[in-house]
Amino acid sequence: MKHPKVFKSILSAAIAFGMATTLQPAAAESNDKRNVILIIGDGMDDTQVTIGRNYLEGAQGRLVIDNMPYRGAVQVLTVHENDPSKFIYVADSANSATSMATGAITSRGRIGTSAKDDKDLTTIAEMAKTSGFATGIVSTANVTDATPASFVAHVSSRGCENPDMMVNAEAFAGVIVDCSADTKALGGKGSIAEQIADADIDVVLGGGQKHFNKNAEAMPKPLFTVAQDNNYQYITKAKQLAQVNPNQKLLGLFSESTMPVRMQGENGRGSEAPKPSFLNKVDWRVGDVEMPAPMKCEANPEFEGMPNLRDMTAAAISHLDARSANGFFLMVESASIDKQSHARKPCGQIGEMQQLDESLKVALDFAKENPNTLILVTADHGQAAQILPDGSLFNAMPVAVYPMGMVSRIITPEGQIMAVNYATTPHGFPIEEHTGTTVPLYSNQPIPAMLTQPEIFNLLKDHLQL
Amino acid sequence: MKHPKVFKSILSAAIAFGMATTLQPAAAESNDKRNVILIIGDGMDDTQVTIGRNYLEGAQGRLVIDNMPYRGAVQVLTVHENDPSKFIYVADSANSATSMATGAITSRGRIGTSAKDDKDLTTIAEMAKTSGFATGIVSTANVTDATPASFVAHVSSRGCENPDMMVNAEAFAGVIVDCSADTKALGGKGSIAEQIADADIDVVLGGGQKHFNKNAEAMPKPLFTVAQDNNYQYITKAKQLAQVNPNQKLLGLFSESTMPVRMQGENGRGSEAPKPSFLNKVDWRVGDVEMPAPMKCEANPEFEGMPNLRDMTAAAISHLDARSANGFFLMVESASIDKQSHARKPCGQIGEMQQLDESLKVALDFAKENPNTLILVTADHGQAAQILPDGSLFNAMPVAVYPMGMVSRIITPEGQIMAVNYATTPHGFPIEEHTGTTVPLYSNQPIPAMLTQPEIFNLLKDHLQL
Repeated sequence: MKHPKVFKSILSAAIAFGMATTLQPAAAESNDKRNVILIIGDGMDDTQVTIGRNYLEGAQGRLVIDNMPYRGAVQVLTVHENDPSKFIYVADSANSATSMATGAITSRGRIGTSAKDDKDLTTIAEMAKTSGFATGIVSTANVTDATPASFVAHVSSRGCENPDMMVNAEAFAGVIVDCSADTKALGGKGSIAEQIADADIDVVLGGGQKHFNKNAEAMPKPLFTVAQDNNYQYITKAKQLAQVNPNQKLLGLFSESTMPVRMQGENGRGSEAPKPSFLNKVDWRVGDVEMPAPMKCEANPEFEGMPNLRDMTAAAISHLDARSANGFFLMVESASIDKQSHARKPCGQIGEMQQLDESLKVALDFAKENPNTLILVTADHGQAAQILPDGSLFNAMPVAVYPMGMVSRIITPEGQIMAVNYATTPHGFPIEEHTGTTVPLYSNQPIPAMLTQPEIFNLLKDHLQL
Repeated sequence: MKHPKVFKSILSAAIAFGMATTLQPAAAESNDKRNVILIIGDGMDDTQVTIGRNYLEGAQGRLVIDNMPYRGAVQVLTVHENDPSKFIYVADSANSATSMATGAITSRGRIGTSAKDDKDLTTIAEMAKTSGFATGIVSTANVTDATPASFVAHVSSRGCENPDMMVNAEAFAGVIVDCSADTKALGGKGSIAEQIADADIDVVLGGGQKHFNKNAEAMPKPLFTVAQDNNYQYITKAKQLAQVNPNQKLLGLFSESTMPVRMQGENGRGSEAPKPSFLNKVDWRVGDVEMPAPMKCEANPEFEGMPNLRDMTAAAISHLDARSANGFFLMVESASIDKQSHARKPCGQIGEMQQLDESLKVALDFAKENPNTLILVTADHGQAAQILPDGSLFNAMPVAVYPMGMVSRIITPEGQIMAVNYATTPHGFPIEEHTGTTVPLYSNQPIPAMLTQPEIFNLLKDHLQL
């Protein structure tokens, strides 16, 4: 690792002591390329990182992310849609990614638009492109999902991912979304997939073929063809990542929807409810409980054929670096840390934490050779999973003590059992909630010890001198 | 705030980049007093800090702790009692405070002793005293409780707080502790209270009169008298803090047991279980749920007459500063962030977070005038409370979605509702679990971006040049 220059160290202290009211990361040497790689672990709060560390490296081990030289904390900020002067305490990926991408605070579900008055907010990727930087988004989710979308699109609801989802569409299980005002017919920019197909983005990699197989609004032509007409080369296989043409933009979609995750519980097991005895159900002071059996994590067979996030990140960096004399902005998301926590699947979370960590290694290796590269790693919001004692702290007491949620007891490679509890929604309901907490921010360059999520936008902008 | 010296900045970067294998905070100017103030928020992980911030300062506001210039993360490490080569993933306050106090990793429940072989581990307070520093412990818990005890005592179980608790004693509800080997009769140092009474500690402030009202082992004399014989002045009232004699050590115990907390829920309310309808109990897809009514926080009448943690901290600093030409080591604990989270009382947690924050302000003010003062603020382990959306993220779906735990819906001063969920044990069982997570570390001086909990001991030791 390169030694920091003295002026950077002083700057670091100055920032940390609050002397710099506008955040000014180290100025780039003129004529050098300036790059930003923003890596987002969706839902990756400190607990989720710890779950990954305990399994992947052991309690005493270190992930690549743990060795980042600078660390801060981020206040996640969300406002009410109907009264944006009022805060609420738990975010979703749409409003939090919009904060990082635009510097604004908005309401849940919004993609690159403001709460209540629904104005488009200019994103860091758009500003970078205007100033001659190459830009890219990489995600293990649909590339139209909330986090990547917030960097490149503007629409009132995250559910409006393709042209068929714009008007009174059922996003899922009875939830209706409506982005009528964003349709091209009414002068809007269209769905998220259309905005990506129409845009000037150098790299788009991830999942979501199903959204680009839809016809464009009022056109008998699928969106991947629209993208090809707009000078995107369109790839769908991992091996094609090695053969991309630097003279064309790159759209790579490797799965119908969210990319399958790398790891799963033994034989596909997820979390299970502790089973209290009949007596214990009647009175918590008597009877006992049967806990779920411990399990190992294993490779998810559905992951076969998928590119690793590491490989997508490497391909994106290479493509972006080749396509701009100024440098680039790249957002990389490990999306399913969040999605697997929603689904109570800690093994899935762990594998996606590993994917993030490997991608960070790729970014750090690039930054070693390209020192004007700012790397930021952060989360957008907290997630439900909690590590609990395996066997209650109070199990010397003569009563059955067990978590109220769905539980996994994971056998870690160091031979211990890590108990993970998910208890934010009823057992039958299939999805856990997000949580409200500050989230970590890691960097290869000096950052403030604490900042708000919209201030991440300032760090990005200042590094690119936009 | 003073500007950092350039060498400190460079040192900061060096530490952050992992260039310094032994942590070397800024060297003290010779002949100057060197001081350490270690502030521990028991159970104060990032979520618990966020609960405090949302209520006390608003979502966008900042606590004093949030403005600390340096921030890192701490790996909490715990081993099995019977096989100390094996890690477990959730700590208690005894083993984690012992890590910070001694640099060792031990098993849950142990106070200043090693796992399995039960050896006494020298504490930072003992080392500091030997080198001519004044030393003190301040806590809102019993001063014999796990966190303060780990800095000044050595015993195999945290339950052995007084002479009557040493041999086959019931610590609580059927849980038996036994520290026979630590009795003076068998050549041990006695209970925690006896060790404090016998010790050369300049300041001991907190709760726990009941432990010092017990007679010393095999003596017809209460421990507070033993302490007085050992040159402690013994005080029990807040107002006495203003009139202490600097020529005597100070033992101040202001309550029978844990000090009452500053805040409570409206009319003493704690968390309550959501009430699903009969239909919903039968099938989660139908029926509805009644959530607990929102509530404000209010002053706890039992707190009246208690000294604030701020006042105890100020008195301790003043007494310690007067009693040593070399400087001092002080540990201050806001204990009931943890205890109120165990009891599912977020308003209580918030008040104790405020107490910690006020005490930190006192420490920072002292450090302004005494720049060789290292202030560290950290937590010992995670706690159960989670901030959830008030109204599920999925409440557009036509089913009742609610947390599985006990819930408080707190009306914050900025007029919003913060929902806090506790779901790590059955509703009838009165105590929540700790959680496994990295915890935050804050400092007024450069610290590594990440370190293990035993390495906190190194930071303390190196600053005092022990």
